[in-house]
Amino acid sequence: MPARVSIRDVGPRDGLQPEEPIPVADRIALVHALVDAGLTRVEVAAFVSPKAVPAMAGAADVVAGIERRPGVTYAALVPNLRGAEMALEAGVDELTVTISASPTYNRRNVRMEVEESVAVIASVVAAAGAVPVDAVVSCGFGSPYEADLTPADAVALGRRLADGGATHVTYADTTGMATPLRVAELHGALGGAVDGVGLHLHDTRGTALVNAYAALGLGFTRFDTAVGGLGGSPFAHGAGGNLATEELVALLDDLGVATGIDVEALAGVALRVEALVGRPVPSGVAHAGPRTRAAG
Amino acid sequence: MPARVSIRDVGPRDGLQPEEPIPVADRIALVHALVDAGLTRVEVAAFVSPKAVPAMAGAADVVAGIERRPGVTYAALVPNLRGAEMALEAGVDELTVTISASPTYNRRNVRMEVEESVAVIASVVAAAGAVPVDAVVSCGFGSPYEADLTPADAVALGRRLADGGATHVTYADTTGMATPLRVAELHGALGGAVDGVGLHLHDTRGTALVNAYAALGLGFTRFDTAVGGLGGSPFAHGAGGNLATEELVALLDDLGVATGIDVEALAGVALRVEALVGRPVPSGVAHAGPRTRAAG
Repeated sequence: MPARVSIRDVGPRDGLQPEEPIPVADRIALVHALVDAGLTRVEVAAFVSPKAVPAMAGAADVVAGIERRPGVTYAALVPNLRGAEMALEAGVDELTVTISASPTYNRRNVRMEVEESVAVIASVVAAAGAVPVDAVVSCGFGSPYEADLTPADAVALGRRLADGGATHVTYADTTGMATPLRVAELHGALGGAVDGVGLHLHDTRGTALVNAYAALGLGFTRFDTAVGGLGGSPFAHGAGGNLATEELVALLDDLGVATGIDVEALAGVALRVEALVGRPVPSGVAHAGPRTRAAG
Repeated sequence: MPARVSIRDVGPRDGLQPEEPIPVADRIALVHALVDAGLTRVEVAAFVSPKAVPAMAGAADVVAGIERRPGVTYAALVPNLRGAEMALEAGVDELTVTISASPTYNRRNVRMEVEESVAVIASVVAAAGAVPVDAVVSCGFGSPYEADLTPADAVALGRRLADGGATHVTYADTTGMATPLRVAELHGALGGAVDGVGLHLHDTRGTALVNAYAALGLGFTRFDTAVGGLGGSPFAHGAGGNLATEELVALLDDLGVATGIDVEALAGVALRVEALVGRPVPSGVAHAGPRTRAAG
């Protein structure tokens, strides 16, 4: 197990994106609460079309309203050069861009061929200058469209993006198809070079935590999670939220892996998020607390 | 990883126990559906007071109504000698008895001292004759009442029960306090002798599957699960159901560990259970299917 793990909470972005729109002030307060709980990397907004994603409207206002804490990286998702320019103008610390290892998923998600998305990312990297760019490769562990897509395919794409200037590459289990064996395949495809490589896991099939545990054993140290396990479809029960930040932190605490995050504070934030989204969050630790609470 | 794992579905008992009562015919049909999906061990009923547990009323009728399939073990929970006599009269293949490693939990759950429960189990073992008795030790991975209770304490109690004639011992994570490290502690306390030892995991803190995965790596091959992840409180979202049978089977399928169970058939049973209990089951695989469905 690694001595320390770095977690990026994507709750205010990937988590809130499928929900009914929430006021900018509440989204800012959520970011503050996450940082208060010890998060040092937070994806705070997406500079996307408010028509396409109403919940992400007001991204610049969210960024402008955040009281910055030294040592904290405030990231934003950008879909293209225009979004990157807006995010940079707003003063974010990191850009996240997405591309899919699945050609069909890429077409359906952003209506572009993979090659076109590679070119878009190159333009974002050029515009970003000294601001780091994290390229998130979706369908990193399999595709619902191409049965033969493997982690090796995702790594081949990730290598191109890194060669093209992306500061980090993160492999996303967009549709919850990862398993411990697929995580091991990714590790193999990377030749074991996992330093700086991120994992973005979803719980569609209940495997987010077991995949993270398998990844920890292989040396991965960067994870995307969302407070409360937000991010699933609000219309289907148990439909694929992100790995819950507090569930990963509780596991890491028990394993003696440092995160700098206060799991009890985070569980409190998760419960406050329930009021924001108007329904229970799927995280068990949010409701039951970490085992240390029960044993205390 | 072991080559083969044996799963006992406790859905018709531990799963339905906290729910509103369901007709006997539907409980029988559920048992049949589980066996059709490939389960060869099913806990079908509890011979407890119908006043105390209304959902388990009609236990003898459930057992009588089951069309027995050769090679399948139909088990029932019994709380005491009277229950054992009724279950044996009904013709079950296995008795399960419970006792807690936590003195306080034992008092609150069955209003007995641990020593009294040991004596009750001895009387059940004596009455059972050739019928096997599985002693389930609850709070096997920690107690919400005694902060210093460890897996070693549970194993000490389990050893006494085995010495007293219990055919099998199963360690239960009653309140979801197990973690991969606690599972390793249990393994250590057993001196690595995990053959025939059962694990009964709950998902209160989202750790049921990761604990099972850690246990598989240590050689455990007997698991209690419940179709759909049934067994949590119906009044609180995400409140600690059993490890979902189909989520464990999907993981085992991917790992190449044989179970004899058809995960797609089981996912179908889980969805039919939703209609029985009148609410969504927590299992992700029930809703999204196994990854093989997505990749197909």
